[in-house]
Amino acid sequence: MPADQLVQNLESALSKIPLIDPHSHIDPRAPVARSLDDILGYHYYTELAHSAGMSQKLLAQDADPRERVRAIMQFMDRYDNTAQYGWFLDIVRTFLGWEEERRISAADADALFDAAQKTFSQSDWEQQVFEKTRLEKIFLTNEFDDPLSGFDTTRYVPCLRTDTLVFHMDKPETRRRVEVMTGIRIRDAATLRQALVKIFLHFTRNGAKACAISLPPNFHPAKFDDEHFYEQMQFHDFHDLAPGIFWQIAEFCRDFKLPFDLMIGVNRRVYEKGVYQGQDLFDQRTSLLQYKDLFNAFPDVTFPISVLTSAQNQELVAYAWIFPNVLPNGHWWYSNTPPYIQKDLVERLTAVPKTKLIGYYSDAYKLEFVKPKYAMYRRILANVLADEFVRPGVLSETEAVALGTRLLRDNVKEVFKV
Amino acid sequence: MPADQLVQNLESALSKIPLIDPHSHIDPRAPVARSLDDILGYHYYTELAHSAGMSQKLLAQDADPRERVRAIMQFMDRYDNTAQYGWFLDIVRTFLGWEEERRISAADADALFDAAQKTFSQSDWEQQVFEKTRLEKIFLTNEFDDPLSGFDTTRYVPCLRTDTLVFHMDKPETRRRVEVMTGIRIRDAATLRQALVKIFLHFTRNGAKACAISLPPNFHPAKFDDEHFYEQMQFHDFHDLAPGIFWQIAEFCRDFKLPFDLMIGVNRRVYEKGVYQGQDLFDQRTSLLQYKDLFNAFPDVTFPISVLTSAQNQELVAYAWIFPNVLPNGHWWYSNTPPYIQKDLVERLTAVPKTKLIGYYSDAYKLEFVKPKYAMYRRILANVLADEFVRPGVLSETEAVALGTRLLRDNVKEVFKV
Amino acid sequence: MPADQLVQNLESALSKIPLIDPHSHIDPRAPVARSLDDILGYHYYTELAHSAGMSQKLLAQDADPRERVRAIMQFMDRYDNTAQYGWFLDIVRTFLGWEEERRISAADADALFDAAQKTFSQSDWEQQVFEKTRLEKIFLTNEFDDPLSGFDTTRYVPCLRTDTLVFHMDKPETRRRVEVMTGIRIRDAATLRQALVKIFLHFTRNGAKACAISLPPNFHPAKFDDEHFYEQMQFHDFHDLAPGIFWQIAEFCRDFKLPFDLMIGVNRRVYEKGVYQGQDLFDQRTSLLQYKDLFNAFPDVTFPISVLTSAQNQELVAYAWIFPNVLPNGHWWYSNTPPYIQKDLVERLTAVPKTKLIGYYSDAYKLEFVKPKYAMYRRILANVLADEFVRPGVLSETEAVALGTRLLRDNVKEVFKV
Repeated sequence: MPADQLVQNLESALSKIPLIDPHSHIDPRAPVARSLDDILGYHYYTELAHSAGMSQKLLAQDADPRERVRAIMQFMDRYDNTAQYGWFLDIVRTFLGWEEERRISAADADALFDAAQKTFSQSDWEQQVFEKTRLEKIFLTNEFDDPLSGFDTTRYVPCLRTDTLVFHMDKPETRRRVEVMTGIRIRDAATLRQALVKIFLHFTRNGAKACAISLPPNFHPAKFDDEHFYEQMQFHDFHDLAPGIFWQIAEFCRDFKLPFDLMIGVNRRVYEKGVYQGQDLFDQRTSLLQYKDLFNAFPDVTFPISVLTSAQNQELVAYAWIFPNVLPNGHWWYSNTPPYIQKDLVERLTAVPKTKLIGYYSDAYKLEFVKPKYAMYRRILANVLADEFVRPGVLSETEAVALGTRLLRDNVKEVFKV
Repeated sequence: MPADQLVQNLESALSKIPLIDPHSHIDPRAPVARSLDDILGYHYYTELAHSAGMSQKLLAQDADPRERVRAIMQFMDRYDNTAQYGWFLDIVRTFLGWEEERRISAADADALFDAAQKTFSQSDWEQQVFEKTRLEKIFLTNEFDDPLSGFDTTRYVPCLRTDTLVFHMDKPETRRRVEVMTGIRIRDAATLRQALVKIFLHFTRNGAKACAISLPPNFHPAKFDDEHFYEQMQFHDFHDLAPGIFWQIAEFCRDFKLPFDLMIGVNRRVYEKGVYQGQDLFDQRTSLLQYKDLFNAFPDVTFPISVLTSAQNQELVAYAWIFPNVLPNGHWWYSNTPPYIQKDLVERLTAVPKTKLIGYYSDAYKLEFVKPKYAMYRRILANVLADEFVRPGVLSETEAVALGTRLLRDNVKEVFKV
Repeated sequence: MPADQLVQNLESALSKIPLIDPHSHIDPRAPVARSLDDILGYHYYTELAHSAGMSQKLLAQDADPRERVRAIMQFMDRYDNTAQYGWFLDIVRTFLGWEEERRISAADADALFDAAQKTFSQSDWEQQVFEKTRLEKIFLTNEFDDPLSGFDTTRYVPCLRTDTLVFHMDKPETRRRVEVMTGIRIRDAATLRQALVKIFLHFTRNGAKACAISLPPNFHPAKFDDEHFYEQMQFHDFHDLAPGIFWQIAEFCRDFKLPFDLMIGVNRRVYEKGVYQGQDLFDQRTSLLQYKDLFNAFPDVTFPISVLTSAQNQELVAYAWIFPNVLPNGHWWYSNTPPYIQKDLVERLTAVPKTKLIGYYSDAYKLEFVKPKYAMYRRILANVLADEFVRPGVLSETEAVALGTRLLRDNVKEVFKV
């Protein structure tokens, strides 16, 4: 049974918009999948298969890729109700020519694995994925000491990821990497600043368009004075510096005019024996009020913000409605399934200036996931535009497509200056 | 595309119900707008325009009203997706004769400003707004030392707002105002009580029908003994008295049989340089459990309660389902946009006795806003009544209108005895 | 106006599935109502009637049942908007032959009371209710010293309720009951273990299929060492043992291979003078993160989890998506009304493996409530399956019924091994 004509029209129009994907984990030196294992090895599938009963034996790095695919698909009929299965189905249809109406089962593992091998080994596969996805540019997630060389930074846009700098400065290894990269040995606030300048220069000179970080629910940024930095570095092994290093990075975002993406709410390693990248969860008890001082202190820094939970979306809506520098950004991780996207999107669209809404990003590790994730989002966006704007007579169909385009593309271009 | 016939019928029937608006900030001595600046100067527009990029220069009190309107409308095409824009469009259509189908743009500023000047200057404008709105009575928000004279208190119903008494008793200016108004100099619990009696007498003799207060997310009412009051007043400059003064006011609400409106969840001045009235936000981490002692201690006081966040609506539903003296009240501020109203209304309607549901209030500063805000609410109410009650065969169309009338009017009359 | 054909088909198919109800408070020695007072004396009605204004006089144990029914129905036209009224209407239609289209009013009290007397006194009434409900088995809630005799444990499945053991071990009466039941006098960790072994043996030998507990929002399980148990028992009157006793019970759930139902979020006796069983509420500020250590320490224990608030559903979804041993379980209490069920169900169905979703339980005190509660759930489930799976072309109608069957029955059988 097809969706109605209006929604189809909107979805069709939205699917023609070239994408600039403002957040991903693509490795620009290996951007596409080499085998079906690169698709089903994505943590969304290993998590669900493990959660539904699969042992982790075949997830070992040295396990046979085909065997791993078989194992993950062996459990697929336990999680084929999920949105994540929907992405896989879309990938198989879009990229592997799957045309059958029936659901994919464990028995299809080998045939799909072989089809993927053949398809993914084409020399122009990367370019094909870009075209089928109508993808124009995609943002990366780069460690502070990434050389940022060997790829086209206008297509793969660098983004300085600062989690390591903020949360792991107490590890000698981090400071060693900073020293290798910048030539500076951090020992106080001044040397920290010098190192950060070098890092920001490296990134902006190589086309970086954003700085980013993921933050735990209880994080509270704070300005530390230089003496406090000195004290902690000299006498407390660089511990408890995160709020202050974060603040310094915000200062450089201001000076270098980079938006600072905040991804708020994740607790790392909650499920200690979980699959790779499938160990993190959250505590719903968190508030954007923790960022009050930050938002007030940096009126010139744009903060595109993702919240991990839909319950916090109303805070995000209200803070974005009030603070010029707070922008809602996409639908992240545990909130990136249809009911949460639908709810959060309607809430944002009815209360936040449309020029401040960064609609979506893929968060993908392989380019093949950009298409199915954006397709899910566009389907929901088309429905929301139809129900909230076109049907009540607020917007014409053409105006609704323009509003959708703003969320999908225009705002990304304006906010990140790409 | 029109909504369906059932929803239209319900909406049409509900729009005929004369309104008693149980909470507003109307100044009864200047209840209607004098210019378009009084409409667009409402914090909902200055906030959004500023949030979307407008500087605050023209928001200065001595700025030219026409220039200010131009500035706010200059940014309108950045926030014309919002519910707040919808209210403005409704005002312009209802009161200024705007009949065009297209969206309002910056180019319309002067023409609308002129039209408003002409319309609003009519000698019977106030009466016209009452009629076009089908407004019967509207509650005010009066400071404790408001003389309550010079207006018709059967039409403009006084309500004792107690924020200053509860939260600013440590300011000498507050105590001076109390002394001027009551002749009593507060120095201990007994004199505090004497002053409050005089204030309550003044209000109830002048037709006040409610007491009200807005409260921060971390507020916790508490009964203080007289010695504690003495201690804090004499030796600690009247600090930290809020929980105890609040409790005394609840005692007088009981004695004077006034409902006590609690508006829970606002943090003041979060965005320190925000526009006037556009600086307040919240912390979602709050609970009605903080009011456990209060609800138990005052079974005879009716507490109509507004929560700032939709996430707290389930607490409100459950507390109202269990406590006879707890009543859900309207849809407040950051929860006063369609998706939150829709969600919160359905949740209340399916679990709380219908006689306890105070459907809506305008919170308006100018009478012109009563109509568009109630129209938004009635549209949602009509949809909810259709989807949850008429279509599943639970209520007939006539019964559904009766249920809507109860929320819109009957309960206001019964709860506030107006 | 009927729902559409697809939804009707799905609902009709789902209503044919024999039920295994995995959580109730049925007394197997008095499982059905003896009078209408047993129906309307359910706390859902006494709460609403009291909340809407009814005095508690007639709720006294020695009050006349007919008078009590009259009183509760006297207030019914104040709460006939609620889902709970809907259950009553369904009971009256299904079991008492009520065929009128109009709403039930106070004037119907005597006729319904008499009809119920006649109907409920039939010798095969229990069997009739089982048949009309298509009920196959139903789980009980048994105190630790329940003899578990005198009823058919394949039909009425025992479940060890552990609230008393965990939260009331500081009461001498609890320890006395343990001693009577097990012959063991608890004085340290070892004797506690010995007593628990005897209790678990008694339950599993008598067909128990689950262990269960309800927990306050601030509860945090913890492993206590034996010395700590000794200290608290010998020198602190058995106080503050709850986290550690809970942990020991989890150990026995592991050893005896019993799922451990956690019902998270209730604060007892918030409304101190509330009606019987109508005094409990909650604090939304709670997190499953509090159970991190538990979930990690017991990978082999299945934890079917109910959360009291819909706001916590996203935590439940995410934890069930990641942890193999965490399963979402039903829609509990304040979240057991249509808008919350609908929201929580869609969220679960789009992100958690379908084999882990225990759809529903009745929580009933009398068998007559199983039917209307499950009917409410099936109606919502049918709508969700239609909107999210069949209409978008994700599942065929037959597949959708299979998915519904999984939630309603298959998973209960697999998880609880019944």
